[in-house]
Amino acid sequence: MNELMIKAKKAKEIVQSLGILSTATKNQALLVIADQLEKQSEYLIHENKRDIEEARSADVSQALLDRMILNEKRIHEMAEGLRLLVEIPDPIGEQIESWERPNGLQITKVTVPLGVIGMIYEARPNVTVDAAGLCLKTGNAVLLRGSSSVIHSNQAILKIIHEGLKQTGIPMEAIQLIEDTNRETVDQMLKLNEYLDVLIPRGGAQLIKTVVQNASVPVIETGAGNVHVYIDKDADLEMAKRITVNAKTQRPSVCNAAETLLVQKDWAKKYLVELLAELKAKNVELRGCETSLSIVPEIKKATEEDWETEYLDYIMAVKVVNDVEEAIAHINRYGTKHSETIVTNNTETAERFLQMVDAAAVYHNASTRFTDGFEFGFGAEIGISTQKLHARGPMGLKALTSYKYIVYGDGQIR
Amino acid sequence: MNELMIKAKKAKEIVQSLGILSTATKNQALLVIADQLEKQSEYLIHENKRDIEEARSADVSQALLDRMILNEKRIHEMAEGLRLLVEIPDPIGEQIESWERPNGLQITKVTVPLGVIGMIYEARPNVTVDAAGLCLKTGNAVLLRGSSSVIHSNQAILKIIHEGLKQTGIPMEAIQLIEDTNRETVDQMLKLNEYLDVLIPRGGAQLIKTVVQNASVPVIETGAGNVHVYIDKDADLEMAKRITVNAKTQRPSVCNAAETLLVQKDWAKKYLVELLAELKAKNVELRGCETSLSIVPEIKKATEEDWETEYLDYIMAVKVVNDVEEAIAHINRYGTKHSETIVTNNTETAERFLQMVDAAAVYHNASTRFTDGFEFGFGAEIGISTQKLHARGPMGLKALTSYKYIVYGDGQIR
Repeated sequence: MNELMIKAKKAKEIVQSLGILSTATKNQALLVIADQLEKQSEYLIHENKRDIEEARSADVSQALLDRMILNEKRIHEMAEGLRLLVEIPDPIGEQIESWERPNGLQITKVTVPLGVIGMIYEARPNVTVDAAGLCLKTGNAVLLRGSSSVIHSNQAILKIIHEGLKQTGIPMEAIQLIEDTNRETVDQMLKLNEYLDVLIPRGGAQLIKTVVQNASVPVIETGAGNVHVYIDKDADLEMAKRITVNAKTQRPSVCNAAETLLVQKDWAKKYLVELLAELKAKNVELRGCETSLSIVPEIKKATEEDWETEYLDYIMAVKVVNDVEEAIAHINRYGTKHSETIVTNNTETAERFLQMVDAAAVYHNASTRFTDGFEFGFGAEIGISTQKLHARGPMGLKALTSYKYIVYGDGQIR
Repeated sequence: MNELMIKAKKAKEIVQSLGILSTATKNQALLVIADQLEKQSEYLIHENKRDIEEARSADVSQALLDRMILNEKRIHEMAEGLRLLVEIPDPIGEQIESWERPNGLQITKVTVPLGVIGMIYEARPNVTVDAAGLCLKTGNAVLLRGSSSVIHSNQAILKIIHEGLKQTGIPMEAIQLIEDTNRETVDQMLKLNEYLDVLIPRGGAQLIKTVVQNASVPVIETGAGNVHVYIDKDADLEMAKRITVNAKTQRPSVCNAAETLLVQKDWAKKYLVELLAELKAKNVELRGCETSLSIVPEIKKATEEDWETEYLDYIMAVKVVNDVEEAIAHINRYGTKHSETIVTNNTETAERFLQMVDAAAVYHNASTRFTDGFEFGFGAEIGISTQKLHARGPMGLKALTSYKYIVYGDGQIR
């Protein structure tokens, strides 16, 4: 057995005992780990520097380096993230429903942890702490498979986490790091149905696609967002400007940022020039359909590829449509079922859009940037699901739970 | 594009319109189809005979033939199944939660259909009607990929279903049969993430395993049951006999039937002979561990394979264990997370078992045969899930739904 198999087997052996940990014990462990992360920040930063130096000599991009770095501020944020989890109600052991059958059987539906979770992610040490905290609070065991480029940082973080678990009497196998960072380890994880209950990939579109395409273990997909803003013929100009600019430019690199602007043709004739001027003023590169080019000739021509692309950058595709039906059809064809918004003062048109667009979150007169666990009020976020099974949209702690039926009888047979 | 791609694309194009069908329309379609199945039973039986004759000349087993046959009684049962669905509340469009955020955003969580469902199943024409009815009631579109050996029966059923949809103004693309029964069609379905939201395999363990191992589309796994009965040291002899015999022999071919008997050692010394005699009287072949052989020497010796096997037959493995902890460890190692029961008069021991055994349904002093949608009171059953994502245990109509967040604003940006 290799490292992965040994650790996965151990996780399965102890996982049931995590489901019955008291809320107090779990919270205490979270607090101890949070404190120790801060107290041992020098050690963490020292180990992190080893990763950073290796990455620098390997000539990785500045953007990637930036995500890898640990400093006092980031360590404090990681610790605060754990403290925040303490405040959230324990989702495990909750009685969801209970009923009696005519034969006297008492059936109770109770929340339980998912079990052993495989987390596959990229070079961000903060995800190590974040994932460990979420799994600890929900009574799940987790196998963390991070990137080789931050292995020293992750090993240091795990050392601190294990001290915290030891102090509070929680088995160390609850949170384990897979140190073997060969590509094959991931391939093996994807097929490890014997020991893993679920996989959660966190990172870029390519990583998630690889996991979804190849895993036989069930996956919680946190996905890409090819997000649209639709400006209806009955839209208010100022609101259209405000929402479009915010959805596109407030933080273009995230999944709930808008990528394509759809504009109703009559409205476009009157206001498209002015709306696009706002975007250009924010340095957004525009790529338009033929009709939009006939109104605003100076922008680039969009290709089929533009309708499919999640730019995550200061670029926006623009398409003029006949009506809300064409907007809905375009979104359902090219969208990724993440977040979509309509700007209109017509309630009927809005309702049609909200009902017919297939997405986790659909908005009327608001920016798509609100699709986020904190903005929804969930307290903590695991990610944003773009699939329809299990959990959809922003996922709070509940997404890391399942349930079981406990049935009490006094000798019933069938 | 081949037949599968054409039909899948069409399903995706119309699927959103199914989510807003009224309950009355859906129920009317169900009733029309139910009536027409009965009225056209001669035609159905005639088409079914073509399949049966081909199967006979291909020398298929009697058991398989039996499952393929349509007769008046079975057609009536299929129709009654559809009529039963009419009685069940519509799960779509239900407002699950609604709240306001400090910034004034109104967030509403509403149930929606899953979308386009791919159903892959074996030579049972009743599953065609059953799956079509469940998907119709829940506003899902379905692609039915049945077995080539009942293709004429399925085509005849689809003809009747399409007449019913037409009469009630529901798009025919809501329910489509994949008539190309090549193996490759299934392989293609498993990877059709572009058009399919979920796959549901229904059939034997091999079919389900193939789908789980190879699909990139999310799967609802309706799984195998390696089910255990644990007789604790504080068990009542009469109850132990009644529950063991019922769990094993009332219908051995189904997934909630017991396969392995675990008996606490002190209890075994006193009563194992008598308990096993009951099973032998019901023609159950027994395969025991060394300790049980020392008490009841005439039974066969069990091998490692016996602990892993779902016999689905009049065979039972028997193991003597030290205590409830050993029983729990054995079940969590060899079980398939389906249904498990403990017989004991000790409440504390029972609670330990119920909490620590990882299964969809855990029982105290009752037969495992109750793990079933109808027995649980769900009204209709899609299958019994042995995975932990989305739905666990007996699945009612709700398992065929997802949700979306509808967010109302008045210009909010971030």
